[in-house]
Amino acid sequence: MLSTTERTRLGRAADRAGTETADLYAILDAGLVCHLGVVRPDGAPMVVPTGYGRIGDTLYLHGSTGARSLRLDGEVCVTVTHLDGIVLARSAFHHSLNYRSAMVYGAPRKVTDPDERLAGLRAITEQLAPGQWDAVRAPDRKELAATLVLALPLTEASVKVRTGPPVDDEDDYALPLWAGVLPLRTSYGAPRPDPLLAAPYPVPSHIADRVHPSVPTGD
Amino acid sequence: MLSTTERTRLGRAADRAGTETADLYAILDAGLVCHLGVVRPDGAPMVVPTGYGRIGDTLYLHGSTGARSLRLDGEVCVTVTHLDGIVLARSAFHHSLNYRSAMVYGAPRKVTDPDERLAGLRAITEQLAPGQWDAVRAPDRKELAATLVLALPLTEASVKVRTGPPVDDEDDYALPLWAGVLPLRTSYGAPRPDPLLAAPYPVPSHIADRVHPSVPTGD
Repeated sequence: MLSTTERTRLGRAADRAGTETADLYAILDAGLVCHLGVVRPDGAPMVVPTGYGRIGDTLYLHGSTGARSLRLDGEVCVTVTHLDGIVLARSAFHHSLNYRSAMVYGAPRKVTDPDERLAGLRAITEQLAPGQWDAVRAPDRKELAATLVLALPLTEASVKVRTGPPVDDEDDYALPLWAGVLPLRTSYGAPRPDPLLAAPYPVPSHIADRVHPSVPTGD
Repeated sequence: MLSTTERTRLGRAADRAGTETADLYAILDAGLVCHLGVVRPDGAPMVVPTGYGRIGDTLYLHGSTGARSLRLDGEVCVTVTHLDGIVLARSAFHHSLNYRSAMVYGAPRKVTDPDERLAGLRAITEQLAPGQWDAVRAPDRKELAATLVLALPLTEASVKVRTGPPVDDEDDYALPLWAGVLPLRTSYGAPRPDPLLAAPYPVPSHIADRVHPSVPTGD
């Protein structure tokens, strides 16, 4: 179980809240980017999409040592959201989304240990492109020096999930209206080779295998 | 042109920054949810996925009058991100994403005018489900009273876009490696009727027409 603190106790949607670590990890592991929230020196929030990776109970983030958002010290909020469907109700008020969302809070630690830095960067690359880390050129000394690696413990987090059909007001179920869910799918298209390939190398199987021949619908 | 302020002048990716209003509107109009960043009373950031809608140069957000995130006064950051492809480079360091992202900053105004409240809610519903507002039951007095509508002017915003193949280090182009882009697609599956439909109503065309018979790949 995740620790529940004031800000992870969900106010309005307690029925959608889960606190199981397995749910949190599943949502994080299925994502490509997070939305990282920081507070700027002027006190205003800033939300940027960025890559991440997970090793056990630690979330890794990276950035350029010159980048503004990750240079900021202090608390962050990392949110990963999957949209699963548009919930079409019989009333405008009850329209919604089916989704899975994870929010992680904390003050990231700057990673200085060389092995952990490399492991964190590997996790971030593999999150986006599984199998690539071992297939491509590893970071060199100069690249590593230009890269900031941050570690955020997955101890203060919350999960919100909505599934299923619309929930309409009792009286509205008699309305002569279609209602239901329009499922959302994310899929991969055919890989596009870099025009500057040195030779017509085939697409590696760890990339080609991510492309499904067709997108299943209606299940 | 959008006004450029300190926080919309992008530090690290000036070459990816656009300031054209049309780009901003296109990115916002193509989205389903934004990630809303606020600063909590304890000073920590919070990022929540939420619906939105646009009318002209105003972005509308809504929430429950009892919800925590939108009860907060002050500055917000609204970020909408579309992921278009995974950029697979010849080195781990140059892996990236093709994406379109819009960030809007400002202090939202609480909408009190009844007509503007209704127009804002209509825009938010239509953003998620075009054609539904006129097809379903409109909000009643009680639902309107429970709904907070906020307006954010689209005057302080930034756009970031990455397209195209990986950009590798000069020496790495000679490596015997495939490189390129794995395109990402979001599509709709077959609509799932609510099991509690009062009768076997057909799926309305404004919903059915969103489903493409197949997902194009490789273009």
